[in-house]
Amino acid sequence: MTDILWPGDQHAGDLFTDTAVLDAMIALEAAWSSGLTKAGIAPPGVEVSADRLRALVSDADRESIAVSAESGGNPVIPLVKTLRAGLGDGGAATWLHRGLTSQDLVDTALISCTATAFTQLRAELREQVRALVRLADEHRATPMVARTLTQQAIPMTFGLKVAGWLRGVLDAVEQVDRLVFPVQIGGAAGTLAAAYELAAALDDPASAVLEATTVAARELGLEPTVPWHTVRTEITRSGDAAVGCTDAWGHLANDVLTLSRTEIGELGEGAAGGSSTMPNKANPVLSVLIRRAGLTAPMLGATLHVAAADALEERSSGAWHAEWDALRTLMRHTVIAGRQTTRLVADLRVHADRMRANLDAAGDAVTAEQRTMAKLADHPPRGDYFGAADRLIQIQLDRAEGVQ
Amino acid sequence: MTDILWPGDQHAGDLFTDTAVLDAMIALEAAWSSGLTKAGIAPPGVEVSADRLRALVSDADRESIAVSAESGGNPVIPLVKTLRAGLGDGGAATWLHRGLTSQDLVDTALISCTATAFTQLRAELREQVRALVRLADEHRATPMVARTLTQQAIPMTFGLKVAGWLRGVLDAVEQVDRLVFPVQIGGAAGTLAAAYELAAALDDPASAVLEATTVAARELGLEPTVPWHTVRTEITRSGDAAVGCTDAWGHLANDVLTLSRTEIGELGEGAAGGSSTMPNKANPVLSVLIRRAGLTAPMLGATLHVAAADALEERSSGAWHAEWDALRTLMRHTVIAGRQTTRLVADLRVHADRMRANLDAAGDAVTAEQRTMAKLADHPPRGDYFGAADRLIQIQLDRAEGVQ
Amino acid sequence: MTDILWPGDQHAGDLFTDTAVLDAMIALEAAWSSGLTKAGIAPPGVEVSADRLRALVSDADRESIAVSAESGGNPVIPLVKTLRAGLGDGGAATWLHRGLTSQDLVDTALISCTATAFTQLRAELREQVRALVRLADEHRATPMVARTLTQQAIPMTFGLKVAGWLRGVLDAVEQVDRLVFPVQIGGAAGTLAAAYELAAALDDPASAVLEATTVAARELGLEPTVPWHTVRTEITRSGDAAVGCTDAWGHLANDVLTLSRTEIGELGEGAAGGSSTMPNKANPVLSVLIRRAGLTAPMLGATLHVAAADALEERSSGAWHAEWDALRTLMRHTVIAGRQTTRLVADLRVHADRMRANLDAAGDAVTAEQRTMAKLADHPPRGDYFGAADRLIQIQLDRAEGVQ
Amino acid sequence: MTDILWPGDQHAGDLFTDTAVLDAMIALEAAWSSGLTKAGIAPPGVEVSADRLRALVSDADRESIAVSAESGGNPVIPLVKTLRAGLGDGGAATWLHRGLTSQDLVDTALISCTATAFTQLRAELREQVRALVRLADEHRATPMVARTLTQQAIPMTFGLKVAGWLRGVLDAVEQVDRLVFPVQIGGAAGTLAAAYELAAALDDPASAVLEATTVAARELGLEPTVPWHTVRTEITRSGDAAVGCTDAWGHLANDVLTLSRTEIGELGEGAAGGSSTMPNKANPVLSVLIRRAGLTAPMLGATLHVAAADALEERSSGAWHAEWDALRTLMRHTVIAGRQTTRLVADLRVHADRMRANLDAAGDAVTAEQRTMAKLADHPPRGDYFGAADRLIQIQLDRAEGVQ
Repeated sequence: MTDILWPGDQHAGDLFTDTAVLDAMIALEAAWSSGLTKAGIAPPGVEVSADRLRALVSDADRESIAVSAESGGNPVIPLVKTLRAGLGDGGAATWLHRGLTSQDLVDTALISCTATAFTQLRAELREQVRALVRLADEHRATPMVARTLTQQAIPMTFGLKVAGWLRGVLDAVEQVDRLVFPVQIGGAAGTLAAAYELAAALDDPASAVLEATTVAARELGLEPTVPWHTVRTEITRSGDAAVGCTDAWGHLANDVLTLSRTEIGELGEGAAGGSSTMPNKANPVLSVLIRRAGLTAPMLGATLHVAAADALEERSSGAWHAEWDALRTLMRHTVIAGRQTTRLVADLRVHADRMRANLDAAGDAVTAEQRTMAKLADHPPRGDYFGAADRLIQIQLDRAEGVQ
Repeated sequence: MTDILWPGDQHAGDLFTDTAVLDAMIALEAAWSSGLTKAGIAPPGVEVSADRLRALVSDADRESIAVSAESGGNPVIPLVKTLRAGLGDGGAATWLHRGLTSQDLVDTALISCTATAFTQLRAELREQVRALVRLADEHRATPMVARTLTQQAIPMTFGLKVAGWLRGVLDAVEQVDRLVFPVQIGGAAGTLAAAYELAAALDDPASAVLEATTVAARELGLEPTVPWHTVRTEITRSGDAAVGCTDAWGHLANDVLTLSRTEIGELGEGAAGGSSTMPNKANPVLSVLIRRAGLTAPMLGATLHVAAADALEERSSGAWHAEWDALRTLMRHTVIAGRQTTRLVADLRVHADRMRANLDAAGDAVTAEQRTMAKLADHPPRGDYFGAADRLIQIQLDRAEGVQ
Repeated sequence: MTDILWPGDQHAGDLFTDTAVLDAMIALEAAWSSGLTKAGIAPPGVEVSADRLRALVSDADRESIAVSAESGGNPVIPLVKTLRAGLGDGGAATWLHRGLTSQDLVDTALISCTATAFTQLRAELREQVRALVRLADEHRATPMVARTLTQQAIPMTFGLKVAGWLRGVLDAVEQVDRLVFPVQIGGAAGTLAAAYELAAALDDPASAVLEATTVAARELGLEPTVPWHTVRTEITRSGDAAVGCTDAWGHLANDVLTLSRTEIGELGEGAAGGSSTMPNKANPVLSVLIRRAGLTAPMLGATLHVAAADALEERSSGAWHAEWDALRTLMRHTVIAGRQTTRLVADLRVHADRMRANLDAAGDAVTAEQRTMAKLADHPPRGDYFGAADRLIQIQLDRAEGVQ
Repeated sequence: MTDILWPGDQHAGDLFTDTAVLDAMIALEAAWSSGLTKAGIAPPGVEVSADRLRALVSDADRESIAVSAESGGNPVIPLVKTLRAGLGDGGAATWLHRGLTSQDLVDTALISCTATAFTQLRAELREQVRALVRLADEHRATPMVARTLTQQAIPMTFGLKVAGWLRGVLDAVEQVDRLVFPVQIGGAAGTLAAAYELAAALDDPASAVLEATTVAARELGLEPTVPWHTVRTEITRSGDAAVGCTDAWGHLANDVLTLSRTEIGELGEGAAGGSSTMPNKANPVLSVLIRRAGLTAPMLGATLHVAAADALEERSSGAWHAEWDALRTLMRHTVIAGRQTTRLVADLRVHADRMRANLDAAGDAVTAEQRTMAKLADHPPRGDYFGAADRLIQIQLDRAEGVQ
């Protein structure tokens, strides 16, 4: 079901849907059963596959689990109950979830879904880099007027403007590429005590327990780490990186919105949107929708930080629960804005003639600074007054080399 | 479908779902056709009922409309297309949506859904007032220790604490009761020009057009008003009122969380939540979930204000679109927290014995101030040191009289 | 000292400066001494005037009090110590601050300074109303092109645009006029216990204590009320009202920024700003600075709400302290933006010729909707296509009558 | 002057004061004159030292510059005017500021002050790491009860809790250590056109101009980089890193607040705060003040992101101006909270006896999980049920090795 109040929602697909979240929880139960077994803590026969567990949860179960989530504050109790009932009598049911706690499932599911989002975002960002590199290179020498505080200022090239957008996107790439996605396995209070108790007969229970978490993490494609129940850096860093993306795209979209104004006409969207009542309209809809994400993402990021700063004891009483929806919304909105930005830059129409015409119309006004400088340097004004634009463009193109 | 990442989501039911939003848009189309007809602008035969229009939109249409919403930036173009196609040839199809614009449908739908939310909230608030009045009255004389900056301070009564919660809830009632929910009918640029053109043959087109908007508003149960396309006060006031509710409830929930700590034990939730791994736990889950809303609602309210301050020209390029999801999320979360708070206060367990025991254990420390004052006033300390607590309770009970 | 990083800071003058805050605290001590005396709780001779107390605090004391504020978490302990030392031996020193607590002084000072801010804001808003009324009336029939989603849409009048700004400002007036500014007098835990103990020898100590708070409130020009230590509605309502102002002004400033773009040129600021390097620039500086406030105020408002929702027990452990700086910053920024908006609208240059020229240049495109409507109504297009603009303007002018 | 409404303000000293900001602007003018000269663009005699320039600005000038900042929207125009007037006739005055623009001075000053803040923060963080390492090591085996959702859960060690705080602080160190602080030198529109024009007579003007920026950056101790006028990553990353710090400290302070509750008594601050009226109080004031920063910093960070996403063209019309005060406030508050956290952890009083007593009082309840696990593993419960706590502590201590 596509969200009618966030146009473009389809681009986020199944990301962070209830099914995706439950699947990720189930994947941890399976991976942990594997970890326990491989580490010699649980007997071999009790291992269960994610496929087997997933088959035990019907659509009706999912709905029922979601409703029942309220009584314990999260969906894990009803999920585990459903899974155990489905597994029937025997070791698999008995051993399921042993050593884990609700927070392990919820956090690992959040991280898994976030990792999926960033996989898509990394691809979008790289596609944007390629398109912006082409655009900057193509328009290295396309003259236009620079505008500051809404007013025409001095000449510049459109290539340099694109290089500025590219810089923002490359900054986002840098931040996104640094992220790691760690599993959460800590047990009731982050001590791994239950798993340790189960491993008590082994020579080195602590090593066995840590091995089990490592095995589980690797099976999930996540980083093994020690429990981080109330240290929420992993969540806030993902949030900050997502907001870093929407910052870069918001800036780009703002420029497109302004430059595609009727009276300016220097840019246009590839396929502009219509109106429900005005046949004449060609609206810069992608830019509008991208800007929307840029305006709203910061407050979702702030929500994650308020929750992180409000963390308490071994499980936060509200701050933890406050993160889930904010993180999901932020990640979906970012993925959608990412797709829209990729399309925007891929199909952007550049009206070099209007750029030139607007610059020409500006006349002497925009070369007043040049004349002052030329006089100071005691030589006649030097041509186009593009300054070091070409070199500045090249510096971003060179930087982009590294990420393509 | 209940949201698995916001436990308790079921309490918001159909509020602001895609179907509810589309239904509200359809209701405006119907009401407007009625307005146009009754005002003599459109011929009588072109009026369509909301039921007839609703029947034209299948589940598949809804999904398709949601996906198509991206190309125009909102779902109105595909919705109107679907409705016109369903109506077939003839006056009803031709006249549908004439005089309106996308923003009219989206805004009126947002306001309609918001009004529905506040109807439920008004009922919850009143139920809370009744429960808190009972509780404050019952515990007028129940002694406990007051705590400031986490430390035991001086004696107080539990009734006074409840009166403080009540004050917060009454403040929320006051703010909610002031809200009005105005229709949005402005046409392409808020001039009502299209409708005016349609009414041009009438003696007083302006009056006819305003009459049509009034008729439409009344049929929808909304306030008639002039167009407010980029003046977003109606949205931000609703947002502020919702946040006012979660502020009051967050405060209350914080107190319950602290007073139900194992070591304090003065309060308990009626049906505490269990743990997925610890059989001993009885968690104050409702308070946790209410606190969650209190921590997150302010940033949703801020999003609405950023959008309002960023309004531009006759339709905002991104700021408008930024509101929709934030408003929906805020209203659903508030309704859910409202329901949870009603249950929390209705079922709250008050352990007056523990309150007394904690106060007794505090001993002389918490009467140090009293002894200072008594010495200054030159008389022996006067009994319980509850001050004017009883009078202060009564003042809130009296105020509550007005809203029950 | 004027803040160099918030240009225009001088317009907030002494509002909420350290001196103003301390003076307001001192005023409460004086008013309370008067209240205690008039209510018969303290002996007549112990009353002290605010002037007498103020004279006891030197500049060096103020600095020392600010530094010492850290050890108790607020400036009240060092202030009271300084005052008592200054009063010397005797009843006045002994009775000073009896019955009060730190929170009473801090909250009452916050409210007093906030009330001062809103007094100035009410005047600014009214001046803006008058200017906007004139402007809307003068330009009732000035044609211009309406723009939606950055694109030219249909014709409108500039008077209607001004009427939209006016609506926003009138909404702000409405919200501001509703505010009340209550004193905070609750004693250590909001029970008024210390004052009650002091009054214990009287017939009706509770009434005496409440009388003392009423006397104090009246002397301060504040509303008498019961203690509201952890019910923060009074703070958040002031914050919401301030943000309501910056919302209205931000919208207005955005429109000026766009319409004064070089390529549009329909509006201009009375005295545009220069550049440090470009002799040609005439920047819409007031609009830029107003927009700045519109973008930032919402997050300050959200901070007040997070603090309100995080209130706890009888004095919040951090949430209370979080409010002070946010409230001061919000109120100062709002007052500054208010002044700047008053100047912006008073001196606004309206280039009706450019409005007309841009509309003419738009040609047929902006009357496409009109032709569709005329065809549907089966008559030739009717003139200007301003719709009900004139009536809509009049409705706001009528509403403005009430507040001038 | 110490801010009376943000107790502890003295710890931020001169950071980001008006004088510090102006000094940093002046330092850029001096460094740029050096860069222009060394790159052969300006004649040797026009170089001016920062000391010489600073001496030209009196206290009265500073106030006057701050007031005059409004007319151009920033303090640069009046500052440059003051400096030129002070330099008198001649090359130094004529060449001053040539090639720069207002944004270069403001941004470089913001970055310089931010760099100063992080220098202090890096020292505080390292001091905290050392203190937490000692504390974690000392209390590796100190038993206490873990608490989740406010309720007693299972046993743990205090050392593990400290290791959790340490993890948060180490995460903050990691983020802070990654920051770079780049100069801003772009000229009117980020093209370096003015400097390029001045260098036009040289063989390779672009290289000369870039050399000048590099020289200037190195003299300021900042990173050389290309202009980033509307790509605000450098600002938002500093903001995110600051919020990352307050998140870590907020969590730590929350734990101290809870564990130093009268009824729990497991921790205490070294020098607790008093009350203005209650002789008995010993308030955890540092924790309260740190928590305050944790609650408010996220909204300041969000402000920086909203501004970044709202960046436009070659100089943002409001979004840029919105950053300055938010960044200053965020950096000062973070430095203050850093100092308070260092003191908090250095002087923290650990009441191991109360920890033990509370755990003992919990009795069987907190070992219920252990018994379940032991039964499943078919062996009697194994001792303390601390799980892998000791290993988890050691992992953080090892990680801390790298940063001391």
